[in-house]
Parts: sequence; C-alpha cells; structure tokens
Amino acid sequence: MLKLMELNDENKKILIKELNERAEEVQGELVVNVTNILSEVRKDGDKALLNFTKEFDKVEIENLEVTDKEIEECFNKVEEKFIKALEEAKKNIEEYHEKQKTKGFLITKEKGVYLGQRVIPIERVGVYVPGGTAAYPSSVLMNVIPAKVAGVDEIIMVTPPDKQGGINPYIGVAAKIVGVDKIYKVGGAQAIGALAYGTETIQKVDKIVGPGNIFVAIAKKLVFGTVDIDMIAGPSEILIVADEKSNPRFVAADLMSQAEHDKLASSILVTTSKKLYEEVEKELELQVKELEREEIIRTSLKNFGRAIICNDIKECIDISNLVAPEHLELMVDNPMEYLGQVRNAGSVFLGRYCPEPIGDYFGGTNHVLPTNGTARFFSALSLDSFIKKSSFLYYSEEAILENGEKIITLANKEGLTAHANSVKVRLS
Amino acid sequence: MLKLMELNDENKKILIKELNERAEEVQGELVVNVTNILSEVRKDGDKALLNFTKEFDKVEIENLEVTDKEIEECFNKVEEKFIKALEEAKKNIEEYHEKQKTKGFLITKEKGVYLGQRVIPIERVGVYVPGGTAAYPSSVLMNVIPAKVAGVDEIIMVTPPDKQGGINPYIGVAAKIVGVDKIYKVGGAQAIGALAYGTETIQKVDKIVGPGNIFVAIAKKLVFGTVDIDMIAGPSEILIVADEKSNPRFVAADLMSQAEHDKLASSILVTTSKKLYEEVEKELELQVKELEREEIIRTSLKNFGRAIICNDIKECIDISNLVAPEHLELMVDNPMEYLGQVRNAGSVFLGRYCPEPIGDYFGGTNHVLPTNGTARFFSALSLDSFIKKSSFLYYSEEAILENGEKIITLANKEGLTAHANSVKVRLS
Repeated sequence: MLKLMELNDENKKILIKELNERAEEVQGELVVNVTNILSEVRKDGDKALLNFTKEFDKVEIENLEVTDKEIEECFNKVEEKFIKALEEAKKNIEEYHEKQKTKGFLITKEKGVYLGQRVIPIERVGVYVPGGTAAYPSSVLMNVIPAKVAGVDEIIMVTPPDKQGGINPYIGVAAKIVGVDKIYKVGGAQAIGALAYGTETIQKVDKIVGPGNIFVAIAKKLVFGTVDIDMIAGPSEILIVADEKSNPRFVAADLMSQAEHDKLASSILVTTSKKLYEEVEKELELQVKELEREEIIRTSLKNFGRAIICNDIKECIDISNLVAPEHLELMVDNPMEYLGQVRNAGSVFLGRYCPEPIGDYFGGTNHVLPTNGTARFFSALSLDSFIKKSSFLYYSEEAILENGEKIITLANKEGLTAHANSVKVRLS
Repeated sequence: MLKLMELNDENKKILIKELNERAEEVQGELVVNVTNILSEVRKDGDKALLNFTKEFDKVEIENLEVTDKEIEECFNKVEEKFIKALEEAKKNIEEYHEKQKTKGFLITKEKGVYLGQRVIPIERVGVYVPGGTAAYPSSVLMNVIPAKVAGVDEIIMVTPPDKQGGINPYIGVAAKIVGVDKIYKVGGAQAIGALAYGTETIQKVDKIVGPGNIFVAIAKKLVFGTVDIDMIAGPSEILIVADEKSNPRFVAADLMSQAEHDKLASSILVTTSKKLYEEVEKELELQVKELEREEIIRTSLKNFGRAIICNDIKECIDISNLVAPEHLELMVDNPMEYLGQVRNAGSVFLGRYCPEPIGDYFGGTNHVLPTNGTARFFSALSLDSFIKKSSFLYYSEEAILENGEKIITLANKEGLTAHANSVKVRLS
C-alpha cells in the first residue's frame, strides 16, 4: 500500500513537495462566517453563545458553566479501569513536564549594575476540547498538565455540549483529574470568541490552546494578537526508520496508527531492507481489515504512504531530517547511538517496543507536536508555552557616568537624539 | 503635553482600548502586491531579485553578495569610537544571552524506560536589516547575537543597497563584528521571499527575524509556516512609574525617547505625585525644542501621551500590569522591592539612572520586545527564538508488557483502534 520511491535527489524534492501540499488553502467564505461569529460574541456576550449553541449544536443550554454535580455524574459513567489508567498517565506526564521548568537569572557587576531575567507564568489560559467523535481525554491531559506545572493561575476549559446539553463524561473526568478550574459548555468559533474577548460568564484569557475543527482553527488565527494561541495543527506524519531485523508486524501496525488519524496523514517507511518493505506490505493488508477505520487508513496510505530503501541507517536519518516528521520511530538496535544524528523531529520513539501511541497517551512526553515539516523550527507544547520571560536592568549613577558617552555615540549614529538625550540629562 | 486621566475603572478600560486601537488594519491591496512579489521571487529567483531592486531601490546590482572587500571599506568609513562602543555593547549582550542557555534532560526508570528532551539549534537563520534612515546597527547586534549564542549553523543577513549599490557602513561593520556568515544586498518583500524559498544565490533559511517596513512585515506574515518568523512589531510604548522624589528632567527625557520612534508610540507617566506631573509637562516643552524629531515627538505625545496620578506605587504597578508595556521604568527608591509585583512587561528598567536607551544599545538585555500589550503572553527575542526542543522516549519489551493494557484502554476509549493495535501486536 506504500508507494515505493527510489532514492535520489529528485525524489527527495518530490517527497517534500507532496507532503507540503497537504496543507489546504482556507476558504474565504469560511473566514467571513467565522469573523461574523466572533464579532457577535464580542458584541452580545453570553446571549450570542447561547444562540450559536442552539443553531450549531442543536441544543438549548441554560447554564454555560458545568457544575460540580455534573462532574460527579461523569465519574459515575466511567469505568474504574479508565480512571486508573488516566491517573497513571497523568503522573508520567507531570514527571516529564516538571523537568522542563526553567529558572530566571541575575548578573551582578561592579559599580552598581545588575540585570537578569524572570520567568512568569501566563495568568489565564483557555483550553479548547472538541466534542463528538474527536473528544479525546488524552488531549485534556496534554494541554492542561503543562499549564498547571508552569503555574498558570486559572485554566478555563470550553467544550461543546452533546445533544442532551451534557458533556462527554470522559472529558469531564479528565478535566477534574488534571485540575481544570472552570468548564463551560460551548464549542466552535463562538467558544474561541468568548475566551478571547470575555463575556458576562466567561472571563477573557491570555492564551488559547487545544485542537479543533476548521471553524475553531480559523477563529484561533483571527484572535491571535488579542491573545496568544498554540500552533495550528496541520496534516500529521510518522516516519519509521527500520533495519532488516525489524518486525514487519510492528512496522505495519505503527504506520497505520498514524494513518487512521485522517486522510491527509502521511506514513513513511525508510529502511535498509527491501525484504522488510515487502513483508510490511503484506502485514498492512492483513492487519487493516481488523481495524475500525479501515477506509481512512487505506486512503491515507494510498495518498501519502511512502517507502524508501536506503543503503545504511545514516542515509535513512538524512531523509528523516529532510522530512522533519512529527513522529520519528528509530526501530534499530542501540537507538541512542543514532539520536545525535536526528536534527529535525517533533518526538522520537526509540527501539523496537516503543510505538508512537505510548507517547500519545502514557509515556510522559507531550503529544501536541509540530506537524507538516515544521519540526525544523517548532517544538512540542511544553512549559515554555505557558510562561513568558521578562528582563530587568539596573544602572547606578556611577555606571551611567562611566558608560554614558558610549551609549550617546551609538544613539546619535542612528539619528535618535531623544534616546541620546535621556542619557545626557543624567550626565550633567 | 500628556493627557491627564483620572484614576477610575472606566478610564482604565479607555486607556487599554486607545492603546490597542493603534494597531492598524493591513490594506488588502498591499497584501496582493506583496503576494505577487513573493511568487515572482519563488519562480524567477535571482533574476526577480535584481529586477525588483532596480524597480524599488533604483539601483542596478551585479553581485548580490557583499564581498570581504566591501566590508573592509565599511570599516574605513566608520569612526574608531563607534566601533569600540559597539564592541563593548556586544560583550554585554553576549554575557546576558549566554545565561539564557537551556539544557536538555533525561529521565531513566526501572524496567528499561527512559525519556527526555534535547535542545537543538535551528540550522539556518535569515536576519532582515532595513536600510535608509532606519538602518540601525543596534538591531544587527540584538538579532544576531542570540542566534550565534544559540549555536545556529549559518546566519544570513539581507539589507537593501543604497543608491550607489553599496551597503550602509555601520550595518556592514556591525555584521562583521557579530559574525554574520553572509550578507546580501536585497531588501523589501523580495528579500523575505529569497530567504523563505531560496534562489540560485541565496539559500533557503528556517527562520526569519528582524524589523522592516510594512512590505517586509506583510511578507513575513505570508511566508510564516514555510519558515518561522519572529514577532511582528506593533506600536511600542514606555510606561514610567515615578514617585515624588523623581527628577522631572529625567522623566520627560525618557518619555520622549520612546515618543521619537513614531507617531503611534505611546508614553505613559503613572505617578504618586501631581506636582511631578506638572513639572514633567514643563520639562517636555523645554527639552523637545532641542530634539531633531520634535514633530514626531509632539504628535506622538499629543495622541498617545498619558498621565495618571495614583495613591501609591502598588496602584501604579497595577496599571502597568494592565497596560503590559514594552518598556517599564520603575523610578523609585529600592526598585527591586517592587519587581515581584510586575507581572506584565517586556523589559523593566530600575531606578533613577537607568533610562530605557541603556537597554536599547548597551546594557545587555535584548531590545526586541513584545509591543502593544502582548507582554501579557510574549517574551523578548532570546535564545529560545533560535532553538527547538525535541523529545524522545524508549520502552523496553518488559515495560510495554507491564503497561500495554492501560494504553490500549485509553486508545480504545478514543475510538482509535489502530493506536491500540500498535501496542497489541507487541503483547502477543
């Protein structure tokens, strides 16, 4: 099911071009619709939210805020086994993100100069969580835990109500477990508007994170600047580097775990063994029939499934660096030996027993990763996403007397005489 | 010249609204023009660059790349005093940014699990430096030094040629001093296109930083995603918190150092002393006459100069946190006592002898700061801007046997059976 590409420079270019072109152009009409929704929310607040909920979610809501009682009911609907697994995942994710904490610093100098940098959590964060079939409790963990660990004061979750006006019990349970402060039953572009501008019920936030459909994505782009947003997730990918000793069953299963996400997902096998490739092809056919999302997987592999045979592992990793995949699996012996060669990848899964879904749910690393080649310059969601750094500088009178003339020289050369003047007045 | 606003909740809202509204809407026509320039550069490469240079910069260039000989000539045109000041500034800026280095980490667990995060410099960075009256050597230092310290492999500078086809000697000298790898004589949207897509001469980069005019700003927005970009600088501001002991000469000079940037800049005095405000008003009139940019300063102060009298310093800082100014000066005794109350500010200048221009040129902190209230969630340009963080995760066979069922439970609840399958195949 994977399209075999011969290894040459021309094909490398084609591969990158085909992957990049997955990102769709946004429809102008959609942007107009979303703009209107946002401006109604800005103008009419809660009233607009309730109207849009009636229109789009086909349900009349009385209270936007989810009550403690509703959360209690969520727990009644969910199996103990699920809660236990979620709590253990939370522990692992917290442990990993705790390590991301950064400290400020202070430099002191003679003659009364000091300067430094402080690390300050963002005050209020909004987390969007989709409803329906895309209601992922793991997404609640991955977006909320780093904000919590970073020390954000208040975390507000928005999620669309179901047809009965309730919320998905798995989402409710996940939100309670990670300590979300407030949950509101509102989704779509209107929820993003509420978070960005505030309404009578929902307080304005400083940053919005979390995945959503095309309306949510456009709304996030439009409010960017008024608030900060996380990355807009593009089509995702897995690239597997596998040697001749790799188990084709594992390789096939892992390629499909990415392919099931959507029809634009890309699964790429880069291997030193033609034989492995052939066996993987057979395994794909065998396994795909047993999977619920067979049709999506087949379409995704047909469109964006690729296989490339290389001469050695280094050549495989060179291709991976070119693709800059969201997920990279290094299915080789001693994988740590090769990690230093990996320059561009969102998250790297090492060895033969570490399929990407361990990271999606449980391992501890974050599953919100740079997609569509942006791992060249973007990083996963992390504590960095929920803090800001603010610098400070102190000069004593003695210090400005000593250095003032140099600063005046530099300012004057740029024609900024009022800059120079602010130093001058202190020298006389 | 400052508009005095009484302290009340209504006025706080008005203040924020007036400041936010400074950000102008981008003209649709301009976006079309820039889109065309970008697509011609993408199609015709160097040829397009030379044509646009002829059209916009009114000069015919033969070689885009600046030669060693041209750089040597720059040094001949520049005073020794300037070079010395620049070198000392470079030392201070390096010292500060060295402290921003972050390390990766590794967590090891029993039963063969390890995970962690690596810090990897971005490979190739492009720095835009404006020409003409906005050719600021300090901007070269502030944009290039953090990239250098971060370990970026290659730093490429673009700057428009002057009417004789040369480059601004101060820019040339600054670029040499900080160790830019290559300099090309090309400006405007076409330069951004060259950096984003690459041409025969100019290699494609991964990230573009540096200020520019409206064409450059729009081009940066349009190529965002293909490459990363820094913040788009909006209208800037200074907020000065001053007590009754503050010197009105200093306060007035500092307010104007910001006001001279452009007519949208905002200078805000928040003080516990009505008397100080009145004296500052007199000083503004006295000093402004001596400054080259008198007209810009008068317009800027008239439009966006504000003064608010508060009851105590805490009240002053509350207003500052609301404004989230790019620059905050705390002109009080023992300023460090108040720093912990400052939640939202790009950079804080402490005490009576630390006007903001020390930070613009010399002190060591970065002068590329979040503008127009975005200090609520953005940080200054820093080492973080030139690195990415990549996670990794290893599970042994024993570890997946122990935890596999939990991961399967979580994946199945999300309806992602191919995710579950990638774990299942390893359990049997």
